[in-house]
Parts: sequence; C-alpha cells; structure tokens
Amino acid sequence: MRFHVRITVSLPPGLDPAERDRLLAAELARGRELHAAGTIVDIWRLPGRLANVGIWEAADATELHGLIASLPLFPYLVADVEALARHPITGG
Amino acid sequence: MRFHVRITVSLPPGLDPAERDRLLAAELARGRELHAAGTIVDIWRLPGRLANVGIWEAADATELHGLIASLPLFPYLVADVEALARHPITGG
Amino acid sequence: MRFHVRITVSLPPGLDPAERDRLLAAELARGRELHAAGTIVDIWRLPGRLANVGIWEAADATELHGLIASLPLFPYLVADVEALARHPITGG
Amino acid sequence: MRFHVRITVSLPPGLDPAERDRLLAAELARGRELHAAGTIVDIWRLPGRLANVGIWEAADATELHGLIASLPLFPYLVADVEALARHPITGG
Amino acid sequence: MRFHVRITVSLPPGLDPAERDRLLAAELARGRELHAAGTIVDIWRLPGRLANVGIWEAADATELHGLIASLPLFPYLVADVEALARHPITGG
Amino acid sequence: MRFHVRITVSLPPGLDPAERDRLLAAELARGRELHAAGTIVDIWRLPGRLANVGIWEAADATELHGLIASLPLFPYLVADVEALARHPITGG
Amino acid sequence: MRFHVRITVSLPPGLDPAERDRLLAAELARGRELHAAGTIVDIWRLPGRLANVGIWEAADATELHGLIASLPLFPYLVADVEALARHPITGG
Amino acid sequence: MRFHVRITVSLPPGLDPAERDRLLAAELARGRELHAAGTIVDIWRLPGRLANVGIWEAADATELHGLIASLPLFPYLVADVEALARHPITGG
Amino acid sequence: MRFHVRITVSLPPGLDPAERDRLLAAELARGRELHAAGTIVDIWRLPGRLANVGIWEAADATELHGLIASLPLFPYLVADVEALARHPITGG
Amino acid sequence: MRFHVRITVSLPPGLDPAERDRLLAAELARGRELHAAGTIVDIWRLPGRLANVGIWEAADATELHGLIASLPLFPYLVADVEALARHPITGG
Repeated sequence: MRFHVRITVSLPPGLDPAERDRLLAAELARGRELHAAGTIVDIWRLPGRLANVGIWEAADATELHGLIASLPLFPYLVADVEALARHPITGG
Repeated sequence: MRFHVRITVSLPPGLDPAERDRLLAAELARGRELHAAGTIVDIWRLPGRLANVGIWEAADATELHGLIASLPLFPYLVADVEALARHPITGG
Repeated sequence: MRFHVRITVSLPPGLDPAERDRLLAAELARGRELHAAGTIVDIWRLPGRLANVGIWEAADATELHGLIASLPLFPYLVADVEALARHPITGG
Repeated sequence: MRFHVRITVSLPPGLDPAERDRLLAAELARGRELHAAGTIVDIWRLPGRLANVGIWEAADATELHGLIASLPLFPYLVADVEALARHPITGG
Repeated sequence: MRFHVRITVSLPPGLDPAERDRLLAAELARGRELHAAGTIVDIWRLPGRLANVGIWEAADATELHGLIASLPLFPYLVADVEALARHPITGG
Repeated sequence: MRFHVRITVSLPPGLDPAERDRLLAAELARGRELHAAGTIVDIWRLPGRLANVGIWEAADATELHGLIASLPLFPYLVADVEALARHPITGG
Repeated sequence: MRFHVRITVSLPPGLDPAERDRLLAAELARGRELHAAGTIVDIWRLPGRLANVGIWEAADATELHGLIASLPLFPYLVADVEALARHPITGG
Repeated sequence: MRFHVRITVSLPPGLDPAERDRLLAAELARGRELHAAGTIVDIWRLPGRLANVGIWEAADATELHGLIASLPLFPYLVADVEALARHPITGG
Repeated sequence: MRFHVRITVSLPPGLDPAERDRLLAAELARGRELHAAGTIVDIWRLPGRLANVGIWEAADATELHGLIASLPLFPYLVADVEALARHPITGG
Repeated sequence: MRFHVRITVSLPPGLDPAERDRLLAAELARGRELHAAGTIVDIWRLPGRLANVGIWEAADATELHGLIASLPLFPYLVADVEALARHPITGG
C-alpha cells in the first residue's frame, strides 16, 4: 500500500555542528537503503527548509511506523502520513 | 520541473446531479489526457473526500497554471502547488 | 487494516426539511449495513454537531474511499482519514 | 463513559538516551496496566510520530484526568480529550 | 457531569427577517426551559456576534447531545463541547 | 464584570521536580485565595493537560491583569481572556 | 472601559447593488453617531477589505454587545472583541 | 511607500459564465491601468487558483485602499496587505 | 502614517529573574520615550499575558521597523504590524 | 524562473550577542552577493521582526534550495517558497 509522507526536521538550535553533520549523513545513508529496498518509492526535497515529501510503500501503517522510526533523525522529525487510494486517472 | 499539486474540489451544494456527473466525467477525461501526455506523472486520491495529490511536470509555474486551469472543475477547485527539488536520496 | 475516520456533515442551510429527514434516515440505514458487515468496527457521535468518529476496517485506502463514498451524505460531508498502526500496549 | 483521547508526546531534544528509554518503558508498563484494567479500551499508534489515539473509559472527566496524569510521560505530553456520545448506528 | 459548551450561530444570509425573529424567539424560550431545569447552569453571551459560552449539566455526552439538538437553532449552530474536571481550587 | 479566562501552563521541560512541586503548590494556594475572595467565581480543570477554564470577577481588564499576574505560575502560562456579556436566558 | 473591536464584514455574494449601497450608507451614518457619542473612540480601516479596527468605550461587555448589535451590518459581520487594560507606558 | 498585496478571488459558484468573463476582462483592464500608472509595480500569479501577489506603490494605506477598491472584482476578493520596509541588502 | 502594532513577548523560561526585571524596566523606559515623542500614540495591555496593542506613528515601514527594533525586548518579541487607513466615520 | 520566498529567522534565545552580531553580518554579506548576482531580484524587510520577503531567480527548485541553504542563518530560518507564474497584467 502507498503512503504520502511529509517529513519536517527540527534540529535543536544548540546542536554541535559535527553531530549535526554525522546525523545528516546517517539519515542520508538510511534513506538510500530504504530507496534501494523499494520502501521509499520516490522522494523530493521541499526547497528552503529541512523537509521532504515522499511516496512510501509498506504493508500497512504498523510496518510504515517501524520504517520511519528507523531513521536516525526520528527523534527530531515529525512525519505527516496520509494513506493513498488509487485514482481513476491511472486506471484504478 | 516537478511540482507537488494537492487539489481539493468543492462542488456547490445545490448542483444538479446530472451536471455533477457530467463535470466529473469531463474531469476524468481531461485528467487521463494530462496523464497520457506525461504532465500528470503520478496521482492518488485522498480517501474520504473529493481531493487528490499528484506529481506534475511542467516547464515552469506559468505553464503549470495553464494546465491546471484547463481542468473542467477549475472553477470549483483549489490547487496547492509546491515546487519540488531533487532529494539526495535519489542521486540528486 | 484499521482506519480512524472523523466525519463532519454540513447540510446546505436551505435544505428542505423532508429531504433532510430522508437523507439522515438513508445515512443511518447505510451506516447500520456497514456496521453489520464489520466495516465500521466502532463509531461514536461527537456531541453538539453532526459529526462522528469511527474505527473502520478496509483492505486499503482504495477500498475505504469506496465505502465512504457509498454513504448517502457523501456530497455533504468531509472525512478525515488516518491510517492506524498497532500500539505495543495491545500486544502489537 | 467513553472518551476519545489523542496523546502527542514531545520529549525534550536534549534528553539523555538512557532516560528516554527508561521513560518509554515505564510509559508502556503503565499503559498495559490501564489496558488490563479496562480503562484504555482500545488504542492505536499514529504512524510517524510519538502519538496515539485511544478510547478510554472513566466515570467522568475528573477521574479521566487523574488516569492520564498517572502516565510517566505526563510532563511531556498533551492529551486532547473529547467526550463521546453513543451513535444510533450502534443501537444507541 | 459538567460540560463547557461554546455555541456559534451562523444564520444563512438570505434568511427572511420574520423567520429570523421567530427562530431567535424560539431559541430564547427553549434556552430558558433548559436553564430552569438546571441543564444550562450558567451562560454568557460573547459580545459582538451570535455566540455564547455556557456550563451545562448532563448525565453524559449522549444526553448532552440530545439537549443541544433540541435547540431550535441546532441546524444553524456549531457547539464545541469540552468535558470539565473538578479543579482542586474548589475543593475537588 | 465577568471574564472568561482559559489558562494553559507550559512548564519548561528541564524544570527541577522539587521546584515544579513548589510552584504547583504555591499556585494552588494563590488560587484558593482568589476563590475565597470571590475573584475566581468558578473554575474547572480541562482533563489531560495543565489547563483550566474559569469565570473571574474584576472591576475591569486592568484589575484582571493584575490578578492573573499575581499567580506564581504567571511566567509559565498564557491566559486567553474574553469579556462576558449577560445572556437573555438568565434574565439579562 | 475600553475595548479593542475588529470588525470583518462579509456581504452575501448575490446582494443587490442598491441594497448594498443602502446598507453601507446606513452603516456609515450609525458609525458617525457612535463616534459623536464617544462610543467609538477611534477607528481605522484595514486596507484591501471590508474590515476595520476600533477602540470602543462602554460600561461593560453587555453594553458593548448592544452597541455593536445596533449596526445595520450586524447580520453580516463578525466582531472580535478584546478587553483592554491600561499600559504602564501611559501612566497606568 | 511599497506594499505587499496578496489577492485571493472567490467568485460565487452560481455566477453566470458570461458575467464571469466580463468581470475577469474588466479586472484585467483595470490592472493594466494600475500597472501603467506605476501603482502595481510588479505582480505574479500564484499557480492553481485565482490569486496573485504584487508589489504596490501608494502614498499611504488610505490611498492603497482606494486603489484596491477600484478593482472590478473588489466585492469578490480579499487582499492581505503588508507594509514593506527597505532591506539593508538593497542598500536601505 | 499610522500603524497598528501588536507585540507579544516570549521571555526564555530559564531567564534569570534579575535580568528579567532589568529588561522589563528598560523596556518600560524606552516605551515612555517613544510615547513622549509621539511615536506610540496610544497603547493598551492585553490582559493575562505579556502582550500589548498600540497605535504607532511613523513616516513609513522602514522607520517603524527601526523604532520597534530599538526596544530592549526586541530579541524576545514578535510584532504584528498592520498599516492603517483613515475610516470615513472619522471624516477621512 | 521566479520564486516568492518569505524568510523568518528564529535565533535561539540564549545566543551569545557577539555570535548574533557575527551571524547577522555574515547573512547581510551573503545576501548582497546573491543580490549582485541577480539571484535575489528584490527583497523587503517585514517590519517588527526578523523576516523578509523576496523575489528570487533560479533555474529550478533544486538550485533555489542550494542558494537558500548557502545563507549563514540557514540553520535558524524557515523559508516559505512559492513558484510564481507570469500575470497577464504584465503581458504574460
């Protein structure tokens, strides 16, 4: 099943720059794993902030939560999740 | 360039049912044309309301506006448009 | 899969009272069918307005949309849908 | 009487990871007690964040407040409470 | 049990003035009945609009919904209901 | 004159527990004084959070501000104040 | 006592232009009466819409409501009222 | 003085198509006059809806209101106005 | 030109009380200077919080920004500014 | 392509004043570079807060994000980006 996931990251203002870089690199690596596995079907950055919108594939909301919670930035992000239905334009 | 377009339709409460059906059919036909032309790259219905979220391809916001305005339901909809940037997860 | 569905009804102010009664009766009958079928697992009224919150069971968001769209009041309602994950309290 | 309770947790960004784990474990244990006692009738996680939605049973709002305040995460959460009325679909 | 009820009335713009007067008079009469019966414990008008805030007494949310729905203006109002807990200041 | 006062408290996440207890006790003591003096006419807790709604009596908004500012938790709270008018239901 | 009153007017879209002109003229005349009487102490238009913000003088919120309700546009406006306290800058 | 003006148009759903075309043409003509006169310094359409954002020049807010009110669509629009200050980047 | 300025102050929760007192005293002194100079034409406190609403006089938004930025609490406040137009009630 | 960019800066309350001055100076210098390069076509300060609104030129949203992320204040700001379409008033 497909989900629309909008992720907004709020890093604490006093975060150490090295820790910030380490977190962002770990996040990117985990994101690439999820993309390679077909979980993150597509993803775009929203310009001007630490935020993205993606189409995720998961069996259900329980699996999806586990996948989002596996992101290294999980303690610093909020994900808005919407379940997606097929649209008749695409033959659904 | 890719755009994230969220469309919410508000049909007037007193709309004649036959006109409603005609409008929805015309909307679907135009949507399929835009999908076949590669303008609507992907689209999903948001369950429980007349609303959808799609990824659109257009040269710029001027062309995008013309394409959205070509929808038969344009007088009855609001489209929230966000310009999308490549995300490094996808190699951007 | 379980969904959290919050439905708010907005009947047009000039609606004929007989038509209003007919619509509400049809809505109740369809709701009871969905409850008997196990689609509406549980449902409560939010006091003071035409609104309810329910737990729905559907294979996915596409099926759920079809079920909500089958309600006689569908042209007059907005449904806010949230996909639900199991909570570890309940053994999930 | 039944209540609809939506709980959103905001842990402070600088929280020590061990304290975080201890708090989440204590919260889960207390939640299971309340579930076993019939206070938390049902509960689901909202995917993508530290949030849940539950149906709680309490004599009144005074008792309900005491039960929510007994959660170890109470200093870090906000609970949105709605009193629920029976819906005629369920024979009410 | 006590409830905090905030009622906002939206009369349709084209409402006939005589019908408007009749509705407001019927609303006032029904409100006085509820006040005399101890259901509306206290009520104040919010200045500058057709709105009020009141403290209502009802066995539970189901009874409360029936009482609010008995108001002649029910088709034209939205009631925001909050269940109230005793505050320790008042000895609770 | 009567005022509707909704108070929401946000204690800083890192507050020392002993200081937290001391502040809440001082707040309760001051609240009881204001209640005994007839300033806080009635007050209820909103379940699930550090928040309350009350009916306050003060000569005017200037006096009311001084009374709210006398609360020990004043640096940590926001009060939403609404001036109340008599409602014709209560003979006004 | 002083009140801060923000008034937003929403004329129905289908309003007859002559009736619109008549209403606006009556509103202006009544506003000038209230200004001459010292009720509307000061008032400014918010540019770009039918809206204004004013400082009103009234004994209390009950009197204020009556004064606002005396405006010919009362059925088509919403007034947001805030009770004002003296500020120490002005010697209060 | 420069103002930031965001205009959102809401045409009534039942508007006659010929009247709609006439209004939009008159609006465009008036807009071109204001652009030629230097009042509308720059203006862009927000894609996907009847809305625009512009930089306007006017002596003050009183003159600005008169200019916006001269638009044929004024009864059907809301303009959000923000006064602009020079930014030091541009030498201000 | 007149501006409507609503100022909300958010002092950091951990602020040293002596520093808090010093800042508030400096703010009051600067406010009195601006009032004596005719910049702050009138100002009221909004009861129940550190907030005020005032009518300011400045040549334009650039000058106004400089005046607001001269407040000692500027790092801790947000000012909502609205340009004011004359209202025909006051002869404008 | 043109973008409408609204930037709001939130400096952490405990920021060292010297670091604050250094950051603001670096931000101004980088802003002037972007202005000289034609990236920031025009920009204005919103009075009363650390915020601005600007018209930016970039090939697409990906390039725009890189440009905004090059600002020294990027960790402390949120940018709201809107893609702009030509308006027929300007001959588009």
